Amino acid sequence: MVPTYRKDTIAAIATPQGIGALGIVRVSGPDAIVKINGLFPNKDLETIKSHTLHFGPIIHEGELIDEVLISVFRAPHSFTGENSVEISCHGSPYILQKLMEALAAIGISPAEPGEYTLRAYLNGRMDLSQAEAVADLIAAESKAAHDTAMQQMRGGFSLKIKELRAQLLYFASLIELELDFAEEDVEFADRGTLINLLDTTYMEAAKLAASFQLGNAIKSGVKVVIAGRPNAGKSTLLNALLNEERALVSDIPGTTRDSIEDVLVVDGIKFRFIDTAGIRDPAETIERMGIARTFEKIKEADIIVYLYDVNTTSPQMLRDDIETFEGKNKIILVGNKIDSAQEDKAPFETGFQFPSVQISAKKGLHIDAFKSLLIQSLDLAHVMPTGQETIVTNIRHFNSLNHVLMAIDQIRAGLQLHITGDLLAADIKSALRSMAEITGEITSDEILGNIFGKFCIGK
Amino acid sequence: MVPTYRKDTIAAIATPQGIGALGIVRVSGPDAIVKINGLFPNKDLETIKSHTLHFGPIIHEGELIDEVLISVFRAPHSFTGENSVEISCHGSPYILQKLMEALAAIGISPAEPGEYTLRAYLNGRMDLSQAEAVADLIAAESKAAHDTAMQQMRGGFSLKIKELRAQLLYFASLIELELDFAEEDVEFADRGTLINLLDTTYMEAAKLAASFQLGNAIKSGVKVVIAGRPNAGKSTLLNALLNEERALVSDIPGTTRDSIEDVLVVDGIKFRFIDTAGIRDPAETIERMGIARTFEKIKEADIIVYLYDVNTTSPQMLRDDIETFEGKNKIILVGNKIDSAQEDKAPFETGFQFPSVQISAKKGLHIDAFKSLLIQSLDLAHVMPTGQETIVTNIRHFNSLNHVLMAIDQIRAGLQLHITGDLLAADIKSALRSMAEITGEITSDEILGNIFGKFCIGK
Repeated sequence: MVPTYRKDTIAAIATPQGIGALGIVRVSGPDAIVKINGLFPNKDLETIKSHTLHFGPIIHEGELIDEVLISVFRAPHSFTGENSVEISCHGSPYILQKLMEALAAIGISPAEPGEYTLRAYLNGRMDLSQAEAVADLIAAESKAAHDTAMQQMRGGFSLKIKELRAQLLYFASLIELELDFAEEDVEFADRGTLINLLDTTYMEAAKLAASFQLGNAIKSGVKVVIAGRPNAGKSTLLNALLNEERALVSDIPGTTRDSIEDVLVVDGIKFRFIDTAGIRDPAETIERMGIARTFEKIKEADIIVYLYDVNTTSPQMLRDDIETFEGKNKIILVGNKIDSAQEDKAPFETGFQFPSVQISAKKGLHIDAFKSLLIQSLDLAHVMPTGQETIVTNIRHFNSLNHVLMAIDQIRAGLQLHITGDLLAADIKSALRSMAEITGEITSDEILGNIFGKFCIGK
Repeated sequence: MVPTYRKDTIAAIATPQGIGALGIVRVSGPDAIVKINGLFPNKDLETIKSHTLHFGPIIHEGELIDEVLISVFRAPHSFTGENSVEISCHGSPYILQKLMEALAAIGISPAEPGEYTLRAYLNGRMDLSQAEAVADLIAAESKAAHDTAMQQMRGGFSLKIKELRAQLLYFASLIELELDFAEEDVEFADRGTLINLLDTTYMEAAKLAASFQLGNAIKSGVKVVIAGRPNAGKSTLLNALLNEERALVSDIPGTTRDSIEDVLVVDGIKFRFIDTAGIRDPAETIERMGIARTFEKIKEADIIVYLYDVNTTSPQMLRDDIETFEGKNKIILVGNKIDSAQEDKAPFETGFQFPSVQISAKKGLHIDAFKSLLIQSLDLAHVMPTGQETIVTNIRHFNSLNHVLMAIDQIRAGLQLHITGDLLAADIKSALRSMAEITGEITSDEILGNIFGKFCIGK
């Protein structure tokens, strides 16, 4: 399970399964160049420059496997930081298999999932949060998920953690100064200043931790439940949204459509419309009100869209329904069927402060306005424009940040109780440790196994 | 349909669909380098050497699409013979889509299927039969299919055709010599010598044409029908074969398993075991003897394996069954259930000259001997060892070779009738034309459309 760190030479197919124009096998490790050289009679790869391409046959035990293009990267100037060779062959599963067999025969072992990125991390080519972003970037299906992963991969998040760490180290140095002269019973920095310093760090860490809700929604998709009475037009609304966006969604191969979910991307954000039997039919919801599962789904939703027929819904009916949605979900009120509304009938006041819009799902009226409400409800102000702010998308980072916050709370309480610096040291260390876990300066085989085991082979 | 030859710059995703470690976009055409340079701020690609690799971000309209590795190939030293750039990005369908959108925005059009190989052919990087072999190589699922495609791609077949052509041109030159001095009424080469010369060419072309049956079987898989009376052990035999080979077969991603076919690779040859209701149950076969479809299947089969129970089958029963297999199929007789045969009971003489073996499908006895018979029945003497002989695998080439043979027949008949050389010219031209069609020196948009339309995108 845990990819123990080996330093031998490894290989893996780096392109998706199936038939294509090109297939790539990546080889990395100290012997990558010398071993591939033995299969490549055309040129002496050991004497050629890094970052060059060479065409020729791959021959193993007299057998011509393919004519390929070889890319050579010399350590440390490669993705892994090791000697690396990429073999670009014809995109035939048979050839790729034969190639892997030949590599195994000359002592190159098959790579574990994520082993290239693990090596890149272990060789100092990137920190742990950057390595994690590589997998997120590959899995990203929307602009927002792509952009946050990209920012994290390029070190934006790491930089933020480093800043927090520097602040805490500065705080620690002030405490230490106090310790060094403790016998003289002098307070060098007054406790008020120290508390202010700590509060700044706390606020910034808290802001990062708070961004996780949005970050997680961006990465996994924003969960939306469309609720409403029968015949409010839920399916028509979903179809109106999907028809318009389906081309975009299905243009992205690999987009998985869960049978109980409709996924669509609006303005670069992935939304998952979750089907809840109880919610689809409020009558049933009321009957099954005690059923925890339905409420679990509602609780999990980031947004509840309450859809009602403007022609048949009274203000009281609407209030009755809305009041069943307790919890912290965002709620959007959508009046449907305005196409068949009597013109002289003015829309009633809902009496709620929730954002609301009136549409016709059937005629496609004001669907854009509804989409704008979906986007606005995410409170993206601090993510857009792209990359301006750091968003936490990884639950491991979120947990570590919460540990940091708890430790700072402890330190702060200690300061207020005028506990001496040496007794604060444990909490300071704990906060620093949690920060170091995010960037991977401190880690364990188990954590690495968890992270890289989820990568695809060849990455 | 017909990929009309454009000379602009084209792009396509060259890796299979889906999520992977790496994705490749290939760009080819006069503006490939200058246009990609506009998206790649890190380096000036216009001034760097061919066959070099460069890391950096791809940025379009201020938007960072990915950090990529760029390979640069300068005309004519590329697959297509044009300026080419390969962009190796993270294997994310979203990124690949964004990249293609950015390329379209800067005026690089999406490539048609096979357009890279079409350009390679049109730019003289390979002839038409070599280009066709590229698609065969990618689709090859067995060693034999791989090796024949590889030999053809490397020009083995083209060389053979060139030799035939040279022979025919030499023949034509002798006829022409005769023409030039026709008024002097002198025969320069006697007609007997000319006929011998022609016969040599004919024999070689006929040998090539004859290899198509095997070549087609190698490429598409050898069709095998297992016939026999109920309880002869047909499914057990199939399972014995499949269990042993399944690992091999399923190790090759993309191997398709037709619901009515079991595919397995024996000694590098792909066999397709075809299920025929009528054949699975001979009783039914007799009833449905008139049904053309069952016989069609038997006729299509390359090999009929007749399986019988050595304990319950009499020589007469066996002869009755075998006689229903008319046609040109190869037949292998397999006596099954030797594990339950009485030891003192000697196997009877079948009275047929067909290759035969006695096995126990249940106990896995002599399965290897049966496999050897399957392989031997293919008459591979002239293909093994690999690449020694040229095999025709393409029906287009087969048809052209048949035209060559017909034309040579005509020339030969004309020679025997002492028709003068100028009247033979039309047939000589026809034979040369058919040869030139194979290598693509003569071709049409329609032929090119047929050939390259079947390629995958990006190749």
